[in-house]
Amino acid sequence: MSGNTFGTLFTVTTFGESHGPAIGCVIDGCPPGMDLSEADIQPELDRRRPGTSRHVTQRQEPDTVEILSGVYQGKTTGTPIALLIRNQDQRSKDYGNITETFRPGHADFTYWNKYGIRDPRGGGRSSARLTAPVVGAAAIAKKWLKEKFGTEFKGGMSQLGEIVIPFEDWQFAAGNPFFAPTSDASLIERLETYMDELRKDGDSIGARIDVVATNVPVGLGEPIYDKLDAEIAYAMMGINAVKGVEIGAGFASVAQRGSEHGDELTPNGFVTNKAGGILGGISTGQDIIVSMAIKPTSSIRTPKNSIDKEGNPALVETFGRHDPCVGIRATPIAEAMLALVLMDHALRHRAQCADVPKAQFSFVK
Amino acid sequence: MSGNTFGTLFTVTTFGESHGPAIGCVIDGCPPGMDLSEADIQPELDRRRPGTSRHVTQRQEPDTVEILSGVYQGKTTGTPIALLIRNQDQRSKDYGNITETFRPGHADFTYWNKYGIRDPRGGGRSSARLTAPVVGAAAIAKKWLKEKFGTEFKGGMSQLGEIVIPFEDWQFAAGNPFFAPTSDASLIERLETYMDELRKDGDSIGARIDVVATNVPVGLGEPIYDKLDAEIAYAMMGINAVKGVEIGAGFASVAQRGSEHGDELTPNGFVTNKAGGILGGISTGQDIIVSMAIKPTSSIRTPKNSIDKEGNPALVETFGRHDPCVGIRATPIAEAMLALVLMDHALRHRAQCADVPKAQFSFVK
Amino acid sequence: MSGNTFGTLFTVTTFGESHGPAIGCVIDGCPPGMDLSEADIQPELDRRRPGTSRHVTQRQEPDTVEILSGVYQGKTTGTPIALLIRNQDQRSKDYGNITETFRPGHADFTYWNKYGIRDPRGGGRSSARLTAPVVGAAAIAKKWLKEKFGTEFKGGMSQLGEIVIPFEDWQFAAGNPFFAPTSDASLIERLETYMDELRKDGDSIGARIDVVATNVPVGLGEPIYDKLDAEIAYAMMGINAVKGVEIGAGFASVAQRGSEHGDELTPNGFVTNKAGGILGGISTGQDIIVSMAIKPTSSIRTPKNSIDKEGNPALVETFGRHDPCVGIRATPIAEAMLALVLMDHALRHRAQCADVPKAQFSFVK
Amino acid sequence: MSGNTFGTLFTVTTFGESHGPAIGCVIDGCPPGMDLSEADIQPELDRRRPGTSRHVTQRQEPDTVEILSGVYQGKTTGTPIALLIRNQDQRSKDYGNITETFRPGHADFTYWNKYGIRDPRGGGRSSARLTAPVVGAAAIAKKWLKEKFGTEFKGGMSQLGEIVIPFEDWQFAAGNPFFAPTSDASLIERLETYMDELRKDGDSIGARIDVVATNVPVGLGEPIYDKLDAEIAYAMMGINAVKGVEIGAGFASVAQRGSEHGDELTPNGFVTNKAGGILGGISTGQDIIVSMAIKPTSSIRTPKNSIDKEGNPALVETFGRHDPCVGIRATPIAEAMLALVLMDHALRHRAQCADVPKAQFSFVK
Repeated sequence: MSGNTFGTLFTVTTFGESHGPAIGCVIDGCPPGMDLSEADIQPELDRRRPGTSRHVTQRQEPDTVEILSGVYQGKTTGTPIALLIRNQDQRSKDYGNITETFRPGHADFTYWNKYGIRDPRGGGRSSARLTAPVVGAAAIAKKWLKEKFGTEFKGGMSQLGEIVIPFEDWQFAAGNPFFAPTSDASLIERLETYMDELRKDGDSIGARIDVVATNVPVGLGEPIYDKLDAEIAYAMMGINAVKGVEIGAGFASVAQRGSEHGDELTPNGFVTNKAGGILGGISTGQDIIVSMAIKPTSSIRTPKNSIDKEGNPALVETFGRHDPCVGIRATPIAEAMLALVLMDHALRHRAQCADVPKAQFSFVK
Repeated sequence: MSGNTFGTLFTVTTFGESHGPAIGCVIDGCPPGMDLSEADIQPELDRRRPGTSRHVTQRQEPDTVEILSGVYQGKTTGTPIALLIRNQDQRSKDYGNITETFRPGHADFTYWNKYGIRDPRGGGRSSARLTAPVVGAAAIAKKWLKEKFGTEFKGGMSQLGEIVIPFEDWQFAAGNPFFAPTSDASLIERLETYMDELRKDGDSIGARIDVVATNVPVGLGEPIYDKLDAEIAYAMMGINAVKGVEIGAGFASVAQRGSEHGDELTPNGFVTNKAGGILGGISTGQDIIVSMAIKPTSSIRTPKNSIDKEGNPALVETFGRHDPCVGIRATPIAEAMLALVLMDHALRHRAQCADVPKAQFSFVK
Repeated sequence: MSGNTFGTLFTVTTFGESHGPAIGCVIDGCPPGMDLSEADIQPELDRRRPGTSRHVTQRQEPDTVEILSGVYQGKTTGTPIALLIRNQDQRSKDYGNITETFRPGHADFTYWNKYGIRDPRGGGRSSARLTAPVVGAAAIAKKWLKEKFGTEFKGGMSQLGEIVIPFEDWQFAAGNPFFAPTSDASLIERLETYMDELRKDGDSIGARIDVVATNVPVGLGEPIYDKLDAEIAYAMMGINAVKGVEIGAGFASVAQRGSEHGDELTPNGFVTNKAGGILGGISTGQDIIVSMAIKPTSSIRTPKNSIDKEGNPALVETFGRHDPCVGIRATPIAEAMLALVLMDHALRHRAQCADVPKAQFSFVK
Repeated sequence: MSGNTFGTLFTVTTFGESHGPAIGCVIDGCPPGMDLSEADIQPELDRRRPGTSRHVTQRQEPDTVEILSGVYQGKTTGTPIALLIRNQDQRSKDYGNITETFRPGHADFTYWNKYGIRDPRGGGRSSARLTAPVVGAAAIAKKWLKEKFGTEFKGGMSQLGEIVIPFEDWQFAAGNPFFAPTSDASLIERLETYMDELRKDGDSIGARIDVVATNVPVGLGEPIYDKLDAEIAYAMMGINAVKGVEIGAGFASVAQRGSEHGDELTPNGFVTNKAGGILGGISTGQDIIVSMAIKPTSSIRTPKNSIDKEGNPALVETFGRHDPCVGIRATPIAEAMLALVLMDHALRHRAQCADVPKAQFSFVK
């Protein structure tokens, strides 16, 4: 494994750099016989795409996806599905001293030291643009999980800097540029003002994002190592700028007592969901609840101290327009990663346990 | 992959149940020619072992490790190293209604639904006892990393329930049963009293654990998916009872500004370490800083509502002695998981990048 | 992957050296709920064991297997199954110049160059003794495949040196020390005389072994790379001393015409089986037919030229008793490898294709 | 793993169908800093391409490769290298009863039963066209191995049907359409006549192909399972139409004695190479010698009995032009597969054994 493949049975191998000829991925292991066309994938890419509000990068790329393989007469064939997205903005513009200095908070320093060479165009492979193929691949996973189990994915922002966004209903997340699950127009206005001020200051801010999967079958995940929560933590921490991941009660568990934390059961089901839908690394059938911390955008107009490739001091300023909060676009990506984990484990589970008889009881609905 | 193997090149495949004949693991991919004997491994197992203070389970098992293979005349040969730990406490005592009911907060419900069968003896495979082979395997990784790069691992508890433990120095963690990095005797006393009260109440509590790796080489980790921070999150979230993981600034990043968060560089090195030693998924050469939330012990004396295997209501009480805080024993385990991740990536890095010339500059010391 | 794990979903990770404390393996991914005890495994180990006729090594080891995990109350639980076989013959006898010279045809030279260190005791990890854990693991696979699909494995020797053994019926393979599928007593006598003469000459000879799987479900194998025949070739070529592998018509295909080779179909099924049960990398449902070449035993009494670790000329003679034909013991091992491949692909197939409706026709029986 | 990825550290994930929009692959794990452009890859694709003589399919596709990622300013960056080859011949022509019947010797029957759906256009994913991306990927491996170790790959046909082609020198393989390593013009003429007659008869024939790697470093391969010869067998048996694989003496070993087979060593090196360059699964530093059997083309004009998807009898004739011997084009593909195996193991070897000191002796040249 060389790192660029996600998953064990439903695998996504991505390729591409921000300003190279194209980005894309190969999805292997998709069950055959499912209806699939670009129309199933493009809407998810459009949700992720920058340029949809004044608070995110105005990169003008349509991100049009093309299915290159694995589909015949509108149905998946069981062979690899390749997705291709051509980069339109691949001019080799002058990157100035970006190629010579290491931008604080960016991967410049580490790529340079690891590989001895670095593609500086738009961040190269470290660009958030590389989440697009994953979102495309996850559209396929989402469709299959929905058809098979009724599984759905929802998510949104619960905090922007110091501003906590009280949860109202996921449906509202689609109604504002922040994916804020609220119908409170004055709160949205406050978020907008906050962003405008940051932009004026040439600064940026972090955010907290929550995602939830509903109608998850019981039994997904392995008892040790490839636990469902471990795999979700891996998936989420791998998203650009994520610095923390929680499942269920998360860090609040630190100050909780066992009498409070352990979710009780009744014949009607679990009473609470502090576990976040996972016990012993295996899904309980309750909602999977994940929360993550996104660090502030590293590219800011305010100059910062750094060094150049010879180790000499250098001052780094980022010109051009950048999102003051990368967290704004993170919701569809986090949903996508969660979908990929569940899809992979749904296949893994039935590989080993297809013959297990259904449990002798079911919750009274 | 069936889940029970950790790592890509330095792999650890574990086996065993809490009360079966034995637990152990097979370590594959260890570099040849390193001095190794049980004396290198046993001390780490002893650090992890319960029964070393009145605050942890009094299970009387010596956990004596035996090396079954992969070592010849005191040196690793490059072939798999098998570690075996016999269980002494494997009597098939009466587990009472544990076999018939699902204990809240435990894996009983999910194992039953996943496999249709469940080994109830001491939690079976979901027991924290299964971290012993991993700690053993990590002793080998730690030794190699120390000899090769000078890498060291430190860790301790930073919060027990509501009690925050201010960091003083890692050396003090070895001097008290909590792995608390403090020399403040009154604080230790307060922690002890807190634990005694919990035990009296028949209740339990969560904790926060921090681990750090020093002298980590720059360049470890892959840019996408198998990022070093993603792999660490996977490793930590996979430890029993962990509900949250942070790297560097973690969730504090949510309210941080870019002008504050992005670590500046000077010819002498990084000025701060909000990144926690990882940028773009690759190690920077700074300390790797990880923090995690441990949920309260699920086994408590206080009765809780649950159901039996037929779905009927049942009241579950846990008899016998249990740790009121599983976090107390988590520090050596968290260090072990971090060591395994770094070891694996050290080998992966040199596989691909052994020919990369050293960067043209080095920090002025 | 560090090489010592076989399989993707039903994985076998082995450990051990010929004269170390123990050999064994960890089997991960076994479906839960299957009856299993040592009594299911020991007979297969006994079939493989040396010392059962005067034509094979007289090593007096009972090779008693112990199940360490993964079984509860006589049933598999879905967690890893560890098998342990203690080595009884592990005295550190004088290996003489074996440790200083490279025996022709052996792995001495390559291990030394690869690892810089070598366990010379009985061949260390390169010993054929290491096939024992695999045979043990395969006993589990065989049992599951038999119960699930009625799959069975048969095999035997079809050539010993220049002596071709005409196939009569697999049942006869159990009736003689060569696994020769013949009831011709005079042929068996000829084989025995041949072996006795080789032993007298201090020489050895090659053999050809065939194995067959019957009642294999249609659809196992992946279209590219992990083709069923590719995986079988990998499994067989990995057995000690194997130098060639054929599927179905094998090398006879070179001189066959398409009008002769391509197996025709009728409503009653395939007319012939030149394909050996695999088309396009996927099982057809016919018998899987595999043949392999085993080189002559490298350890012979006749002195051969070699060099020592300093590169000086050295004459190597092998003392002690050795099988003049390692092929004699290869049949149970080849069956085992075939069983492991089919087991793994049975699980892989249902992971991806569990929802595929049965084909609209079935052969008229 | 879902089968379509080749390799462990230097991985090639392919996609595409014969008549879909495009075929290609993603190469992950390539060392950074190597000069690379399409000009390094295109010549290998041209060698493999049909239509270069009257004896192979006249498909008029230029097979122009485009590098989509992983290269910056003419050098590999260490990130995934995606290769894209657009299919020009993707018209959805009338496939007649090909979609309704199973062609003998083809994958039609197995794909249909495995997936319940089948892309019949030009054989879909089972087409030999899918070897093109692999040949492209291997061009990169070949370049790196040549620069690093001086490793080179040579190959050719040693038998066409009953006609044995005596080996003269690899250089002659480039001088005729059969990759025959001979300068004997009358033999080439005989091969041409043979092919013409087969075409007239509407029939096809098998072939034997040999490939060799020279200047292979000692030490590549793992002792168990991922042995170098096992991996080569997997690679070769996975090539379309291959039915048998030999390493070194191969099936001739069956009738060889140990006194003859085991390669002796002198201070100048190995005296013979019956082992084919591999002992105990690890390369000896001698030439790696591989031979394989290719079955006759399954698509022939002569009608054959088969059935349709309802199980009714059907007569299958293949119209259009087909190669009477697919073995003619197999040489570049077999070289490519061998290069991929060696590349992967070169990286795996240095991951584990980079610190092993060079053996204390070297052969006297």
